[in-house]
Order: sequence, then C-alpha cells, then structure tokens
Amino acid sequence: MTPIDFWFSIGSTYTCLTVMRLPAYASKHGLTFNWRPFNIRTILVEQNNIPFAGKPVKAAYMWRDFERRAGKYGLSLKVPAPYPLENLPLANQVALLGMQEGWGRDYVVATYRKWFEGGHPAGSEPNLSASLREIGQDPGRVIEAARSSAIEDTLAVETETAKHIGVFGAPSFVVDGEVFWGDDRLEDAVSWARSGRVV
Amino acid sequence: MTPIDFWFSIGSTYTCLTVMRLPAYASKHGLTFNWRPFNIRTILVEQNNIPFAGKPVKAAYMWRDFERRAGKYGLSLKVPAPYPLENLPLANQVALLGMQEGWGRDYVVATYRKWFEGGHPAGSEPNLSASLREIGQDPGRVIEAARSSAIEDTLAVETETAKHIGVFGAPSFVVDGEVFWGDDRLEDAVSWARSGRVV
Repeated sequence: MTPIDFWFSIGSTYTCLTVMRLPAYASKHGLTFNWRPFNIRTILVEQNNIPFAGKPVKAAYMWRDFERRAGKYGLSLKVPAPYPLENLPLANQVALLGMQEGWGRDYVVATYRKWFEGGHPAGSEPNLSASLREIGQDPGRVIEAARSSAIEDTLAVETETAKHIGVFGAPSFVVDGEVFWGDDRLEDAVSWARSGRVV
Repeated sequence: MTPIDFWFSIGSTYTCLTVMRLPAYASKHGLTFNWRPFNIRTILVEQNNIPFAGKPVKAAYMWRDFERRAGKYGLSLKVPAPYPLENLPLANQVALLGMQEGWGRDYVVATYRKWFEGGHPAGSEPNLSASLREIGQDPGRVIEAARSSAIEDTLAVETETAKHIGVFGAPSFVVDGEVFWGDDRLEDAVSWARSGRVV
C-alpha cells in the first residue's frame, strides 16, 4: 500500500489525538506512517492563518471538541493544556533528531503525555528532560545535538518541503500528493492510500 | 431523542454537503433536525475569524477536501463554485421565510444545487427565482416578503441567538447546549443526542 506521511508539529493541539492513537491504529490496520516533524508556526505566520490567537470563542470550542473526541478514542487528557508553546522549535528539533536516531516516536508520545496529562508544556523543562530520560535518552547530549545548526537547518528544509506539498496545518497526512488536514482526516487518508478515493 | 438544531448559512461551502445529505440521513436514522438559517458572515467578521479570504493555500485545500468528501457521499458537485456569495443576507432571508411557511428546506436544497451543480450563486438571479419557481413558489411575492424588515429583524435575532449559544461557524449542530461545528461533526452530534457522548 502507498505509504502515508504523517506531518506534525509538537505544539499543535489536535496532533495530540493523532500521536496518542496512531501507534495502535497503524498496528491494527497493518499500516506504515512516516512521522515527519516540521515547524507549523512558520507556515501559519507566513500564510496569515492564525487559528486561535485573538479568537476566544473558536479557541474555547476547540478545547471542547478536543475533549469530546479524546473521549471517543478512550483518552484521558486534561484540557485546556498550556497553549501556545513557548519553545515549539526546540520541541520539534528534538523530534527530528529522534527520528534520525530511532527514538523519535517514543519521545513524541512521551512529551505529549507530559503536556496533556501532566500540564507541563512540551519543549520546556521539566517536560523535555523527563521525556528523554523516560525513553532512555540522555537529555544533555540530545538537547545540545538538537540545537545544532545541522538539525535547525534540516527542520527548516522539512518545513519548506511540507509547504511545497501544500501542507498548511498540523497534523496533515499526505499520500500520493493528496493532503489531508486534521486528526479527523486520518481515515480519509487511509482510504485514499487503499483505493485512491475517500469512502 | 433530543432534537438537534442545524444552524446554517447559505453561503457556507461545507453546508452544501450537509444540505445534500441531511434529508436522506435523517430519514434513514429516524432523526429530526430543526433547520435554522442565520447570518454567519456577521459573526465571522465580528470575531475576526475569516476562513479563506487572503488564504489561497487553505482555500485551495478546502475545495479539494470538499470534492473528496462529496465523492464519499456520492454527490456530483462542481468545484470551485462561485465564492463568496454577493447576496448572502437575502439568500438566508428567503430561507427563513421559507422555514416559517413550510417550504424552506426544499428551497435550500434547490438553491445549493443551482449553485454547486449549475454554477449560479445563491441569493442572486437567476438562481433565486429559478429555485423558488422549481419548488412552486412565486419569486415576486417571496423576494418582496423576504426583504421586509420583519424578516430582516428575525434573521438578526436568530444570528444573535446562534452567537449566544457559541456558534461561530457554519454548519453547526447544537444539541443540549453542545456545539458541533462542521459537516464532519454531524455524526458526533447525533451520537451526543443519543448517548450524551461521542462514540
């Protein structure tokens, strides 16, 4: 089956739902997803597409919708979680390094848990070091490497790639050049990968 | 079962999907929906929540997502349809009068068909008169009555009511004070009406 790119930014709220359900979902359906962190904030600002800042009614709705859908997936998450993240770039630089080294998915799940279950923002302490320790990584080494210009540059390149494909929000699923935006479009993306249409 | 309010504005793109599938969906599942037109544009402007103007990437995505989901529902619609509507208020004033007189749903379906199948914007000629004639209404009488201050005022009151409940986008489904935004939340709203949760 056509592989599916899972474009995400730690910092996006609905990405939490995907991160929490995707491992079991992929396993159950025999699917493979390429987890690709990028910097959604760069794209949102560039495209004048600010989802919640200055929009209190829409923001309040988002948290309520998030909570109801978390319940649908059997997840116990505390909302509203601290938002927006202060250190979004670093959170995703660590994720990118982790994808290169093989522990990226575990880190993303761990950091989202500490953010949405424990109330500690991703990308900042104590979340960052605790998440890394929990998955057996040395925070000192990882954070220094994640702050290197090599990783910074690679995240910028990935962000440009996402933008070039047409990704404008997170999470997004991309299959055969088709962009599916939002946790609630995961099933549409899988349908597309299987049959070339949404059923 | 708890009744569900279907808040909509002729002018909203995704509302087209709901309008086209709701009659058969409601009948199949034995559900009752109260169709309540309002002026979404008033609320969007007031809340600085402009979904697509000045956002070409997001707008292009919306049409593609719309097209894929129309396919899922078995609908043949031409996208992009003319957007935004020039005469959004009048389109919804006619709908409101029609709800009072009992032909509102037929008009809404007819006008969306002419907009998304024929490419003629709702709320303007030739769509307006042709839609009314098609459902057996006299365009002259209806348009004059729809332009009355009584109908204008009632649409404004309905719009305020929607805003007061927390409706900030169209379509929205409201059940027991819970707002569900988007055609893709119809099933969540029905689940809530049946069981008080999203399953």
